[in-house]
Amino acid sequence: MLHCGQNLKEKERKSMLREIGFYGPGTIPIDFIEKLGNPGEYPYTRGIYPDMYRQKKPTIREFAGHGQAADTNERFELILAEGGTGLSTAFDLPTLMGRDADEEICEGQVGWDGVTINTVADMDKLFLDIPIDKVTVSMTINAPAAAIWAMYLASAQKRKIPFAFLGGTLQNDILKEYAAQKEWLFPEEHGVKLVVDTIEYAARHLPKWHAVSISGYHIREAGATAAEEIAYTLASGIEYVYRTIKRGLDVDLFAPNLSFFFDLHNNFFEEIAKLRAARRIWAKVMRDRFCAKKGRSLWCRMHVQTAGVTLTAQEPHNNIVRVAIQALAAMLGGAQSIHTNSWDEVLCTPTDEAVRTAIRTQQILQDETGICEFIDPLGGAPMIEDLTNHIEEKALAEIEQIERLGGMLAAVKMGYPQNQIRQSANRQEQDMESGQIVQIGVNKYRSEDITEPENVRKELEAREESENLQIEELSRTKESRDKNAVSRALDALKKSAVKNQNLMPDLINAASAQASLGEISKTLQDVFGEYQEKNRDFAVPDFNETVSKIAERYRLKKPLRIMLAKGGLDGHDRSINTLLTFFRKLGAEAMFPGLHCSLRSVAKRAVEEDVDIIGISTHIGKPPTYFKKLGEYLKLFGREDITLIGGGIITSRHLKILPELGVKKFFPGKPSLETIAEFLYEEAKNK
Amino acid sequence: MLHCGQNLKEKERKSMLREIGFYGPGTIPIDFIEKLGNPGEYPYTRGIYPDMYRQKKPTIREFAGHGQAADTNERFELILAEGGTGLSTAFDLPTLMGRDADEEICEGQVGWDGVTINTVADMDKLFLDIPIDKVTVSMTINAPAAAIWAMYLASAQKRKIPFAFLGGTLQNDILKEYAAQKEWLFPEEHGVKLVVDTIEYAARHLPKWHAVSISGYHIREAGATAAEEIAYTLASGIEYVYRTIKRGLDVDLFAPNLSFFFDLHNNFFEEIAKLRAARRIWAKVMRDRFCAKKGRSLWCRMHVQTAGVTLTAQEPHNNIVRVAIQALAAMLGGAQSIHTNSWDEVLCTPTDEAVRTAIRTQQILQDETGICEFIDPLGGAPMIEDLTNHIEEKALAEIEQIERLGGMLAAVKMGYPQNQIRQSANRQEQDMESGQIVQIGVNKYRSEDITEPENVRKELEAREESENLQIEELSRTKESRDKNAVSRALDALKKSAVKNQNLMPDLINAASAQASLGEISKTLQDVFGEYQEKNRDFAVPDFNETVSKIAERYRLKKPLRIMLAKGGLDGHDRSINTLLTFFRKLGAEAMFPGLHCSLRSVAKRAVEEDVDIIGISTHIGKPPTYFKKLGEYLKLFGREDITLIGGGIITSRHLKILPELGVKKFFPGKPSLETIAEFLYEEAKNK
Repeated sequence: MLHCGQNLKEKERKSMLREIGFYGPGTIPIDFIEKLGNPGEYPYTRGIYPDMYRQKKPTIREFAGHGQAADTNERFELILAEGGTGLSTAFDLPTLMGRDADEEICEGQVGWDGVTINTVADMDKLFLDIPIDKVTVSMTINAPAAAIWAMYLASAQKRKIPFAFLGGTLQNDILKEYAAQKEWLFPEEHGVKLVVDTIEYAARHLPKWHAVSISGYHIREAGATAAEEIAYTLASGIEYVYRTIKRGLDVDLFAPNLSFFFDLHNNFFEEIAKLRAARRIWAKVMRDRFCAKKGRSLWCRMHVQTAGVTLTAQEPHNNIVRVAIQALAAMLGGAQSIHTNSWDEVLCTPTDEAVRTAIRTQQILQDETGICEFIDPLGGAPMIEDLTNHIEEKALAEIEQIERLGGMLAAVKMGYPQNQIRQSANRQEQDMESGQIVQIGVNKYRSEDITEPENVRKELEAREESENLQIEELSRTKESRDKNAVSRALDALKKSAVKNQNLMPDLINAASAQASLGEISKTLQDVFGEYQEKNRDFAVPDFNETVSKIAERYRLKKPLRIMLAKGGLDGHDRSINTLLTFFRKLGAEAMFPGLHCSLRSVAKRAVEEDVDIIGISTHIGKPPTYFKKLGEYLKLFGREDITLIGGGIITSRHLKILPELGVKKFFPGKPSLETIAEFLYEEAKNK
Repeated sequence: MLHCGQNLKEKERKSMLREIGFYGPGTIPIDFIEKLGNPGEYPYTRGIYPDMYRQKKPTIREFAGHGQAADTNERFELILAEGGTGLSTAFDLPTLMGRDADEEICEGQVGWDGVTINTVADMDKLFLDIPIDKVTVSMTINAPAAAIWAMYLASAQKRKIPFAFLGGTLQNDILKEYAAQKEWLFPEEHGVKLVVDTIEYAARHLPKWHAVSISGYHIREAGATAAEEIAYTLASGIEYVYRTIKRGLDVDLFAPNLSFFFDLHNNFFEEIAKLRAARRIWAKVMRDRFCAKKGRSLWCRMHVQTAGVTLTAQEPHNNIVRVAIQALAAMLGGAQSIHTNSWDEVLCTPTDEAVRTAIRTQQILQDETGICEFIDPLGGAPMIEDLTNHIEEKALAEIEQIERLGGMLAAVKMGYPQNQIRQSANRQEQDMESGQIVQIGVNKYRSEDITEPENVRKELEAREESENLQIEELSRTKESRDKNAVSRALDALKKSAVKNQNLMPDLINAASAQASLGEISKTLQDVFGEYQEKNRDFAVPDFNETVSKIAERYRLKKPLRIMLAKGGLDGHDRSINTLLTFFRKLGAEAMFPGLHCSLRSVAKRAVEEDVDIIGISTHIGKPPTYFKKLGEYLKLFGREDITLIGGGIITSRHLKILPELGVKKFFPGKPSLETIAEFLYEEAKNK
């Protein structure tokens, strides 16, 4: 089988590309041009509409959310004013984890990387004056998706907008949370049950609503290859379809409203081929396996977002280039809706100016480059068609593997995709280290310039207050609401959960009664239980030569004990996995207390384990808050001597204040393994 | 015959694209896939190298020049340090016109849009410490190319670098100057003679030098269509080849070193197809018409620059998007060397930061997107191949027309390509006005934000002093040199010119003796005469409906007499042509005093013509200097009452001081015709 993509060993890749990159007379397999089919026809390789963008340009759907509901509402107005054609809501980590702003584990994370929504009152403010009966609204929410949707529907009811008029999308793909993004609430079976509840409810009451957007984005961002991304995504889709049919729904009743969400990574042609392959596989699955009759049931309608992991904090304007090229690939791949990342996204939730540039990127592609006039313009190029075939083949093999394990739910339970993704991520990190994968500014033409531009800094400072304001607001709401009504609604919800009924009606009632998200989550966890991550430890493949040499050169003089941890609810553990393995290779004793620990429990565990160093990886939330709290707890436990280090996403202003908080070293951006090894080597000499 | 591109009427374009944009089974003309040929093989449609970018990545050749030689030398160091792989020199307008900094007509233009070079002493400083025996150096110079090259060679001689080691390119395409860019010195025959002198000299002494880079860039920027761009460029190439063979050189001695330079405009696929078509046409011409034997003689080796006219002063960061997409098209079209424009280019000669982003754009494309791994990846896509065929067909028809007129030199003399380009430009302006061609920020999502970012402003202020410094330096050089040696060298040059000999040896001697560029130009003009533009007035096609309606709505109450002029040597007269026609349509009496008038003569002519308004179009040079001088002369002639207006490229700082200089209205960026009409309408009411 042939491999496609940048994760292969250089030699293997070279030979693969030699084979598929070049065609001349005599080498063109004419037959696959004849097999091609038309755009708008089965198997939809060339696009779902016969006229593609001549008929309907991609929706410019920009993901937005920061601070409190009113802040994000302003951003929505900006997006629509600048020509965005759809909205997409980014929630903060506490909301994504079904928590209320006032819970301890949420410290430093409220309103930071998304908008915070606790009750229907917040939802009212979020969409104030937005014509939600006309503009489609997407919501990037998963574990608590049913509850958040219930708040949205309750808010629409107040505005007397009939459900049938509401168009939009819930992300609501819980399987990829267990597999990759790690924002969960309930055990797997119950997570999937809630997804099916929403699919069923939408199919019966909201004909224009997409209850689930089956998402490869986070799988890819976590380190999967292109083929793995579509394989696990489509396998999740198969699982949802299977379970919804089992619930008794006709496939053609709900399948037309399934939608997909893919990442658009760096490798231009591989990504175009990936989108084409995904459409073909899905069409075949739906027709042959689930016997769908309607054409629309076979469509892999896709929203595509440019790849967050390809952005660099170094020389951030370079990101405009990356985003433009990726957005072009999304269009040449036939996406229905596109989110272009903002160039400052790697420094903070985007500023107004950067969001405008992101929107302009799509407008320039749509209106200035002429590409919307062409229908699948690359179609028939032997290289593109062959690459499409290769990715299809590879993805199909992986889907078959999932099927052998009993489907995606079973596979996730036994940790199979998790492990595959980690291995791919690890190979990628190593290729970065050896320079086989290049990221300009990071491992080539390395730049130390990661200072936010002036306007970014100003906008960030203005946002710091959201957390306290939201906690106050939630407390006022909890005081003023009808407490008995809340209790009654939550009791009813609990009863329905025990009886395994579709929970949407009860969730809408609870939302209308102003029950908070945290209360709803806890009510359901009482019945369903709480998800606990299993299979954390895993075998990683051997490091490549470059990394092995570094590990040898900096082999520690003393086996330091290092605890790596995340702050609060942040589940981005891609670098944690690589670092744990690398630290062990250096001769350290490296450990991880698990995801979703409060800072108190990180400190406690570190003391129990008698570590020398605690390293906090920051991706979401405010690093100074993490270190401040951690320092306080260590002091409480009498272990202020433990060295604090950190790494990850941080603003330059926050970076500056870390030394005052006792942080010895922070590695911002994407430091090389060598830089980190050098630091630890010196530490080991001194300990 | 089918048309390709954005200049067609909407309906015509729609139907054309319908035909070529979509292929399905049964509609694919399989035969042209079989006719395709391989990359690296005749007719080189798919690229000149068999392995294309796997074998050799495009040279990252960034055009740079501002201030004095030492300033540009610093910029060269920056470019090489940031990973640029070739250099390209941008000269200021006085140098491009063969003038010395101290001539009156150069006021406000010295060192402003390029570096100023007066003598070999400047050339020494320009390349100080640059290893010109290793790095290739391109020079964007035309009318005085032979003299500037002579200074470069004289400087290399001083550094004891053998000519055979020097690699680089002179633009040196005088035919396109007469046709489009309008920077000339001598009558057409003599202009072409000098080009042939350099080709001959390079063929005999500098095997690694490209004496001419036959350029479509300026033809396109002046308003030509894609097909016209390659047609006139290749027709110029044919003229040079024909005349060099006539001089007695074997075609295979010089043809391998001819190079080409194309624009990369907005229409993504059209531009890719254009580059492919150019290669095919050139290979056929060289083989069949000039009987070239060597493979390399058939190569259309091309440098490509992203399109300056597509950039906007409005929201200038949007330009990063345009440049990235255009650079990608250049690569997919198989360019050998690429210049990516800087995003702030439309505000000023680029700042360090913007140049870095431009270089990064190419590095990201080369190193992050994986596209260099693929050889002509779009090859064989029926849409691409068909579009290539269409552009080839259209360009061939235009080349045949030029041949019927007696070749490019004869055609230029009778103004044929000039007229065609003006008509195409006019159609484009009209399509912009009606919104058929979109430019985001200009005629859609219009933005008033044309303020330079802080860092741009600071860098500009630092550059204002070059003019005076250079005049002083030139005066010192003229004082200190051996005056007799200069006279002797210039006399010898004159004699050789009279005898019609190859002038390169005499030019190198004159340069070594520190004769100035202005002195050399004048010496040759004494023999050759001076070029005078003919055929200025021309019939323009009827305006489209949108523009006609505007003209009707704002029909002037009084027939204002308006003189439109350029300042100094600036030859960018594209908007002048459109405006003259439009003003007449409004009912004004509009006139143009001709290109290359000093501000004194503009004022004089305006007084003679008794105009109400003078409008200065600024593209190059410092607008405040133009208006200050103009005001002084008008005062001198007792006509301070004439209203001053202007439009074009300007920095926001300069814009602010114009009212103090008596300027009533300035239209920065690309104003709509309606905005201008509105202003004139009010003026006519008051006069």
